[in-house]
Amino acid sequence: MIWICFFVFLAACFAAGSTGGLFPPGRWYDQLAKPSWTPPNWLFPVAWTTLYICIAAAGARVAVQPDNALAMAFWALQIALNTLWTPVFFGLHKLRLGLVVLVALWLSVAVAMVMLWSVDRIAGMLFLPYLAWVTVAGALNLSVLRLNPDADADADAEAAPEV
Amino acid sequence: MIWICFFVFLAACFAAGSTGGLFPPGRWYDQLAKPSWTPPNWLFPVAWTTLYICIAAAGARVAVQPDNALAMAFWALQIALNTLWTPVFFGLHKLRLGLVVLVALWLSVAVAMVMLWSVDRIAGMLFLPYLAWVTVAGALNLSVLRLNPDADADADAEAAPEV
Repeated sequence: MIWICFFVFLAACFAAGSTGGLFPPGRWYDQLAKPSWTPPNWLFPVAWTTLYICIAAAGARVAVQPDNALAMAFWALQIALNTLWTPVFFGLHKLRLGLVVLVALWLSVAVAMVMLWSVDRIAGMLFLPYLAWVTVAGALNLSVLRLNPDADADADAEAAPEV
Repeated sequence: MIWICFFVFLAACFAAGSTGGLFPPGRWYDQLAKPSWTPPNWLFPVAWTTLYICIAAAGARVAVQPDNALAMAFWALQIALNTLWTPVFFGLHKLRLGLVVLVALWLSVAVAMVMLWSVDRIAGMLFLPYLAWVTVAGALNLSVLRLNPDADADADAEAAPEV
């Protein structure tokens, strides 16, 4: 049962992660001014693959245990927000809205971690690297927004790409 | 507890549903040939708002009950796929890949319905309109793909919008 759950949660992570291939950084992102500590592009898929395995494992461990209501609700919330961020940032080039989504994602991951921990400590710990990475991603999104105030699609609605 | 869970699941639905506003149909969709039974544009947000309330209620009812592992895993999977479809179809204009996502969504909703039903019959029934609507959406996506074979962004990679 726990393995079936693991693979179903992993499939949800795959749906979220597929946005990385569908909405790649591309020229727009390459040309943006970025802080000196920006991780190299190749690190993102490596980090996310590792994180998604941890995220799915945490979900599966808690799914098979009682009193998992809030942990499961926040697990679902974080994966929806995780799926949403890439299309908003890399698809629509909405830096400010991307930051809003990332802050919501950070909060949902933080609460999920606490709720998972209350059911199963290992599951809670499996969310720690995720929270750390989303913190870095949030700082990067904020920094890119500050360094490129005119790159936000919402900053100049006329210049926004038509979708 | 069940109310908190309801609002967390509803927040996940809101993240999924926000793609409808972020990636609106627009001129591209308006110009596509569509089958005679295509629902009018205004019906989609009305239907989805109703469905999301049912989907969140089903999730909350089952989250607070024991033996909910697979139901919760498939609830998470369907919301990730639900969030993914709109950016793929309306954002990237990938009709064929959109259909693949919709088939995966249909399967995840169908299995989620069975798993929810096994824990709580009302929760299972709350997923029935969702499955019906995704069936319509899938038939529409297939029909639009057949009627507009050249509209698929993947059909002519050179003409694909840069994102």
